[in-house]
Amino acid sequence: MIQEIAQKAKAASIKMASLSTDIKNQALNNIGQALKANASAIIEANEKDLAQAEKDNLNQALLKRLKFGQAKLDDVVDGIDQLVKLNDPVGQTLSCTELDNNLELYKVTCPIGVLGIIFESRPDALVQISTLGLKSSNAVLLKGGSEAANTNRILTDIINEASVKSGIPENWINLLETREDVKDMLSLDEYIDLIIPRGSNEFVKYIMDNTRVAVLGHADGICHVYIDNEANMDKALRIAHDSKCQYAAVCNAMETLLVNSDIAADFLPKIKEQYDKSNVELRGDQQTQKIIDVAATTDQDWKTEYNDLILSIKIVNNIEEAIEHINTFGSHHTDAIVTENKDKAKQFIGLIDSGDVFWNASTRFSDGFRYGLGAEVGISTNKIHARGPVGLEGLIIYKWLLLGEGQTVSDFSGNNGKKLQSNMLDKKCPI
Amino acid sequence: MIQEIAQKAKAASIKMASLSTDIKNQALNNIGQALKANASAIIEANEKDLAQAEKDNLNQALLKRLKFGQAKLDDVVDGIDQLVKLNDPVGQTLSCTELDNNLELYKVTCPIGVLGIIFESRPDALVQISTLGLKSSNAVLLKGGSEAANTNRILTDIINEASVKSGIPENWINLLETREDVKDMLSLDEYIDLIIPRGSNEFVKYIMDNTRVAVLGHADGICHVYIDNEANMDKALRIAHDSKCQYAAVCNAMETLLVNSDIAADFLPKIKEQYDKSNVELRGDQQTQKIIDVAATTDQDWKTEYNDLILSIKIVNNIEEAIEHINTFGSHHTDAIVTENKDKAKQFIGLIDSGDVFWNASTRFSDGFRYGLGAEVGISTNKIHARGPVGLEGLIIYKWLLLGEGQTVSDFSGNNGKKLQSNMLDKKCPI
Repeated sequence: MIQEIAQKAKAASIKMASLSTDIKNQALNNIGQALKANASAIIEANEKDLAQAEKDNLNQALLKRLKFGQAKLDDVVDGIDQLVKLNDPVGQTLSCTELDNNLELYKVTCPIGVLGIIFESRPDALVQISTLGLKSSNAVLLKGGSEAANTNRILTDIINEASVKSGIPENWINLLETREDVKDMLSLDEYIDLIIPRGSNEFVKYIMDNTRVAVLGHADGICHVYIDNEANMDKALRIAHDSKCQYAAVCNAMETLLVNSDIAADFLPKIKEQYDKSNVELRGDQQTQKIIDVAATTDQDWKTEYNDLILSIKIVNNIEEAIEHINTFGSHHTDAIVTENKDKAKQFIGLIDSGDVFWNASTRFSDGFRYGLGAEVGISTNKIHARGPVGLEGLIIYKWLLLGEGQTVSDFSGNNGKKLQSNMLDKKCPI
Repeated sequence: MIQEIAQKAKAASIKMASLSTDIKNQALNNIGQALKANASAIIEANEKDLAQAEKDNLNQALLKRLKFGQAKLDDVVDGIDQLVKLNDPVGQTLSCTELDNNLELYKVTCPIGVLGIIFESRPDALVQISTLGLKSSNAVLLKGGSEAANTNRILTDIINEASVKSGIPENWINLLETREDVKDMLSLDEYIDLIIPRGSNEFVKYIMDNTRVAVLGHADGICHVYIDNEANMDKALRIAHDSKCQYAAVCNAMETLLVNSDIAADFLPKIKEQYDKSNVELRGDQQTQKIIDVAATTDQDWKTEYNDLILSIKIVNNIEEAIEHINTFGSHHTDAIVTENKDKAKQFIGLIDSGDVFWNASTRFSDGFRYGLGAEVGISTNKIHARGPVGLEGLIIYKWLLLGEGQTVSDFSGNNGKKLQSNMLDKKCPI
């Protein structure tokens, strides 16, 4: 059953690769209008989900994410309008090389194919992800959180109908509903080209361990801030507080604060006062405990993503120790240094092996929307393809197109063969 | 043991990320000189390998690849000279976005980290791959074919010594020697960031199925040429012959020829005459057998990479059937259309789901050297990161660097918060 869905999605994805920008943008506009036109039915479906979630005693944070009222609907339609305005990421010529007279090699962007995306119980994510897929000419298999089942169904139906009417191939968008479906999906490497899992760390790890399909995402978000001895105290306090407290439940919040020993006695009491006001539970290594009254850390703390108002603190003797700690215990997500010394900032940025490395800025900026990428499909700690917040660009790849007039390799072989050139031309692919 | 090697390579790779272009180029020059200075010792080691290979009755093609005399040594040193001249792929600013006054986001290229590369018994490949790794600031674990053991050892020692003397961190280059080592390597996803396997299809499939590390490569090279009814007969004959016969033992040689039914009666007897002269064994579907005297194909033929002078031929009624066949039975490697009709070429290029799609050119052009990429580390049929022939560009990724002056997300939140901008600037990362 899932195999059949994936197979049809693959067939649709092949056709989608050739869609014109106009047809895709028209489809996006029609999706936006259809969502607005069906607002009351969508909100009604969402209220069913909310009622069930309340009956199931879901916590307030989850209920807030699950709620999809007129305000969120307006937001996603605004997002679609923004997406229409973005350049088509498909069909862009990345390079042109003249190999011989009338033998031209073009590197041209194209869609990846079929994306399998698993996301939390946030109906707005379904709209964002599917429209990013459409703009980048990818077919999508979507598995949203089961708490949003009614909302997800009506949204998928509306998006499907509006887009297919506009000329997008049937079966390009598909909703999966059960954990079993996800499990089945993992074995379909013949049809699915990329899986993007969002959700709990355990779940992402499970996906990564159980599929041959390429996976884009992150299991952990163990982010650090290092306060250097040459830090500006005001900046240090602001960034250390914001990185932990602005929103603690997310992957780009700081979990470990590293403090240079030279300034620890000055800095730690001041930041503790701020953390105490924000009800942050502090844990520190032995050096830290000599300066402020905090619980002791264990080795496990350095490897833990609390996702909560808890912070581990470690005193380091120099920037090298900070870098070593981060590269050893971090999750290669987002790490920041606070210093006024440009050379140290350069050293930190060069040696920290993370997707996002910041100088004098809060880790909380690590986000596709703040980066100006439009909506993001996720944050990647992969070392290949796409790293950090992933927007449209992460959903495309390229083809090599060679346009000739009958050339053979024999013409260019042997002692009397012609020589191939490699003249870079500033030229767009003509077909 | 391999774990320790990989761990040290990881540590080296972190330092390599910050190497200056000058140091890397100086190291490359020194490697070239050291290889020339040690020519006689290298050739002596290679002669040991050749003698053993002859004793073991290896075939002539393998012996030819294994031989590493003065000519091949000169070639690899030339290759190193070319590599020195190429731009440093690391530290390139891909984009700059101003998010606020003095809050600038840079996307800057950086190395992937530790590459595990497994390759055939060709000592020149060891030099090419390791120097590509150095130029892109990646540490490498190398496993060459065991037939080249003596040559590989001396080459690795020379490259290691010359590069470390020039300032490249110790342990950046490491030679693995046994299949056991490779097996161990597959579980070291903590230290190894990318595996590039070259070699037999079975071996590449084994690697892909047995590691969590990202793998770049191709298992099969089932390439097609489609001769359209609007093909120029001369081009069709030249391309069909070259794609099969110019060098049949390689992944970019054609395995299946698709012929439009309208021109089959004219084209097939002519191309058969040429194939007969080149001793190509032909197999055809029922339609083909009505026109020329060939053995019958089975379904297995369409899925087979012969790597030999064998060709399967199928007659199709139109371009759509050709595309359908290629997307179903191909390996997404290299496929060509011969036609004078530009619209059909566009249709083919848009709908063929392969890394390399050619119009009126031989499939044998699909090669990093011919593409002007310099040496290639392999050909990828992946749908993410790098596709087709992979040169230096496939060995890099990027980091997001955010340079601020103490900004927090709180400053930009809530109803009275400032608005983040996303002004694209044409500016290089200043640190």
